[in-house]
Amino acid sequence: MGTALEGLKARLTDVQSLRSAGGLVSWEQQTYMPEGGATTRAGHLAILARLEHEMFTAEETGRLLDTAERELDGASYDDADVSLVRVTKHDYAIRTKVPAALVAEISAETALATQIWAKARAQSDFNAFAPSLEKMVDLTRQLADYLGYASHPYDALLDQYEPGTTTADVVEMFAGLRRDLLPIANAIAERKDSVSDAPIHRNFDVAKQKTFTEQAAAWFGFDFKRGRQDQSPHPFCQSLSPDDVRITTRFIPNFLSSSVFGTMHETGHALYEQGAGLGGLHPILASGTSLGVHESQSRMWENIVGRSRGYWSHFYPQLQALFPESLSDVDMETFYRAINKSEPSHIRVEADEVTYNLHIMLRFEMETDLVSGKLSVKDAPDAWEERSQGYLGLTPPDHKRGILQDVHWSIALIGYFPTYSIGNLLSAQFYETALKQHPSIPDEIAQGRFDTLLGWLRENIHQHGRRYFPQELVQRVTGEKINSRAYIAYLRAKFGEIYGF
Amino acid sequence: MGTALEGLKARLTDVQSLRSAGGLVSWEQQTYMPEGGATTRAGHLAILARLEHEMFTAEETGRLLDTAERELDGASYDDADVSLVRVTKHDYAIRTKVPAALVAEISAETALATQIWAKARAQSDFNAFAPSLEKMVDLTRQLADYLGYASHPYDALLDQYEPGTTTADVVEMFAGLRRDLLPIANAIAERKDSVSDAPIHRNFDVAKQKTFTEQAAAWFGFDFKRGRQDQSPHPFCQSLSPDDVRITTRFIPNFLSSSVFGTMHETGHALYEQGAGLGGLHPILASGTSLGVHESQSRMWENIVGRSRGYWSHFYPQLQALFPESLSDVDMETFYRAINKSEPSHIRVEADEVTYNLHIMLRFEMETDLVSGKLSVKDAPDAWEERSQGYLGLTPPDHKRGILQDVHWSIALIGYFPTYSIGNLLSAQFYETALKQHPSIPDEIAQGRFDTLLGWLRENIHQHGRRYFPQELVQRVTGEKINSRAYIAYLRAKFGEIYGF
Repeated sequence: MGTALEGLKARLTDVQSLRSAGGLVSWEQQTYMPEGGATTRAGHLAILARLEHEMFTAEETGRLLDTAERELDGASYDDADVSLVRVTKHDYAIRTKVPAALVAEISAETALATQIWAKARAQSDFNAFAPSLEKMVDLTRQLADYLGYASHPYDALLDQYEPGTTTADVVEMFAGLRRDLLPIANAIAERKDSVSDAPIHRNFDVAKQKTFTEQAAAWFGFDFKRGRQDQSPHPFCQSLSPDDVRITTRFIPNFLSSSVFGTMHETGHALYEQGAGLGGLHPILASGTSLGVHESQSRMWENIVGRSRGYWSHFYPQLQALFPESLSDVDMETFYRAINKSEPSHIRVEADEVTYNLHIMLRFEMETDLVSGKLSVKDAPDAWEERSQGYLGLTPPDHKRGILQDVHWSIALIGYFPTYSIGNLLSAQFYETALKQHPSIPDEIAQGRFDTLLGWLRENIHQHGRRYFPQELVQRVTGEKINSRAYIAYLRAKFGEIYGF
Repeated sequence: MGTALEGLKARLTDVQSLRSAGGLVSWEQQTYMPEGGATTRAGHLAILARLEHEMFTAEETGRLLDTAERELDGASYDDADVSLVRVTKHDYAIRTKVPAALVAEISAETALATQIWAKARAQSDFNAFAPSLEKMVDLTRQLADYLGYASHPYDALLDQYEPGTTTADVVEMFAGLRRDLLPIANAIAERKDSVSDAPIHRNFDVAKQKTFTEQAAAWFGFDFKRGRQDQSPHPFCQSLSPDDVRITTRFIPNFLSSSVFGTMHETGHALYEQGAGLGGLHPILASGTSLGVHESQSRMWENIVGRSRGYWSHFYPQLQALFPESLSDVDMETFYRAINKSEPSHIRVEADEVTYNLHIMLRFEMETDLVSGKLSVKDAPDAWEERSQGYLGLTPPDHKRGILQDVHWSIALIGYFPTYSIGNLLSAQFYETALKQHPSIPDEIAQGRFDTLLGWLRENIHQHGRRYFPQELVQRVTGEKINSRAYIAYLRAKFGEIYGF
């Protein structure tokens, strides 16, 4: 008879296999599934999710965790097994706190609300969505009560996506960010006509875009033997294991950035997942530690590396050679400025590096006020407009381009938005640390070499998988809490130079 | 509280979802999985198979079946619910008879034996595989004992793949087949140089082959909204549901038949699966009723339709136009003869319509003798050679092209081979019946129209899914037992004309 630790590992391997199979089924739904497949696909996903939930939250899992913890008494905090038990206990506690009935109700309501939201957005009709939003706020508040929290119900919601980060942490991060970001955005707005993005909206053959993006992923270090790149309407990264990580890309003929920077973004996620197998961790820990840390990887490769002058000083001639009819009259500097044009806009997913976080701060404030009850659903559209004016200097012309633009609230993802900004802040915080240790990185990028940067990320972040919670990891790697200093310094230097302020 | 029938249906829907998810995972393994995916893929398949087994064989399933049967007392035999209970009881009885320990042992041994077989085949070394074959014979004999049988242990093995068909049935079928087939094969052998297959071994661009095979599948009636066609090393058909049926094709530049007739074959399977949703049956019955009946559909579309003079009289000009450099000097008649060249050969999977069944009869005799103990593993190679000489007039030059050529025995598929021949016999038996009711079918095929034939198959075979066991279905449709008369008549007419005897 084996130890409890062995029993626990076997059980978690099965749980992870079910998650991974579900991931594959979901990936295929978005890539190759024929139209008719939709009739049974929901059933596949539901049964896999249900069996995974039953297996993971079973009392046997709790018993094995407790016994394994005693078996490991005295072992080091960093030990792979100790980490497995610690992190899994955290997950187990969260998932067993919530009654199955509430999970089922949220699942049923989101299925309805997504359809209602899609229709309401198309018709820009907030009133049609208001009852669903009311319901979602109510359900997530119930969820927060079951999960438990110290200060604010939003703490519990945020903790699901960014374990260990509190509402107060985000308030503090965002206070600094707001103070420093708005002057940069304003300085750019005053000079907005000095940069044009017209060149990237010319015509770009999709097959050639595909060729370039496959190379771009490989240049960064994406291992095609342990992954794939396919097409889908919405780009995403799906990891089945560190040895099987898939990214998808969307190709738009007259918008080159969509495929090029979309690929770099998803490659950033994929490199993290492919590297998460390096630390000898149990498969259930061989993945990213949080959405925020994940987003730090995608944003670093997409923006700090991919939208840098150094990168294009090396690769622009190849791009130009691939698209002579669209780029032969565009010099590298003009291209570099085009891909970095910054301008306040209504739609979050289309926002540039500078204004993106303003969208997130707006949503964070909306969400915390809705969850605390300080803001009612009926007053939400006015609050949105007021904040949009304050952050972006824009009033949305309709709800479609305002409060109804994001899918998140219809699928009960309240507490999720801050992770996007955490990712942005961390991308610069990690990169700054990497540069302190390897000042040659920018020069190497300008030579088309990424191995020092990737090696540093693997060593310091990727190989740890989910071993450390995000705040622990950030402290270990950078010696600081998550903060906006490095990110602001990065934006100020880059955009000050581009826009001349 | 619902009825037991409702509970049963819900449970079987979940079972079917797990099977279908497993089918998707398996399909992806053979089409798009990157190399690295192999490390976790076995785990996905194992956990899905285990959970499906647990859910299906649970005592609760048996209880629901018994109660539902009482609830349905007095309802008609053909009723969808009555059929669901009847067929599921048969499946349940089979799967609960075998102890989990034996299932696990077979699974573990086949994993080993497949590797040993692959190496032994490569080296043509029967002695290396002999202990594994010994083990497989022993395990399948144990399996037969648990399953139970009336006359011969082989009955129990065969019944897994062709429910209701006995060893004696096959002996009878094959006796007629042997008597009538050998003279045809001999007559062809005497005239073997009168047909050349050289034209189909010229060069055929793979992209154009793809274009043609996609059209060929659609012409037959394959619905691409409810299915896909992809590439894989070994062609197969995988149904996830009648609304999501996938076929795969292998393209070989200098062997046109591989993709063209491979596609027709898999399309035949796929049409059966796509049509199995028409009868309002529970999803677990919406599939083919046996391997033999399935093969009757693939062989009918591949051989009786696809290798007919009528088909090519209509479509050959299109094929010629697609490959002018390889086919412009080949007239239709020469092409028709080339795709129908018959010649005894060592390898079963490369055999033509006439000689294919000789390979199966050889294997059937080997298997029944091994299972009954009449033949020992050590004497098996001699027995193979003797029978090969008897049936094919050939002695294999090595074991690789003899007793080691098939994967089946290494994966415990003893009792499976006869279903290939049953499919061949049934293809002609069904087609003959269709023609009696619709004599216009051959003329329609010669006009490129397949709707009358497909409509007849849907009405008489496809829509019934697994509602009837194969022998019942054949009796209902053709008024006869499965027999070789129609098939022999078909071969004699077709090959007598081609070879002039």
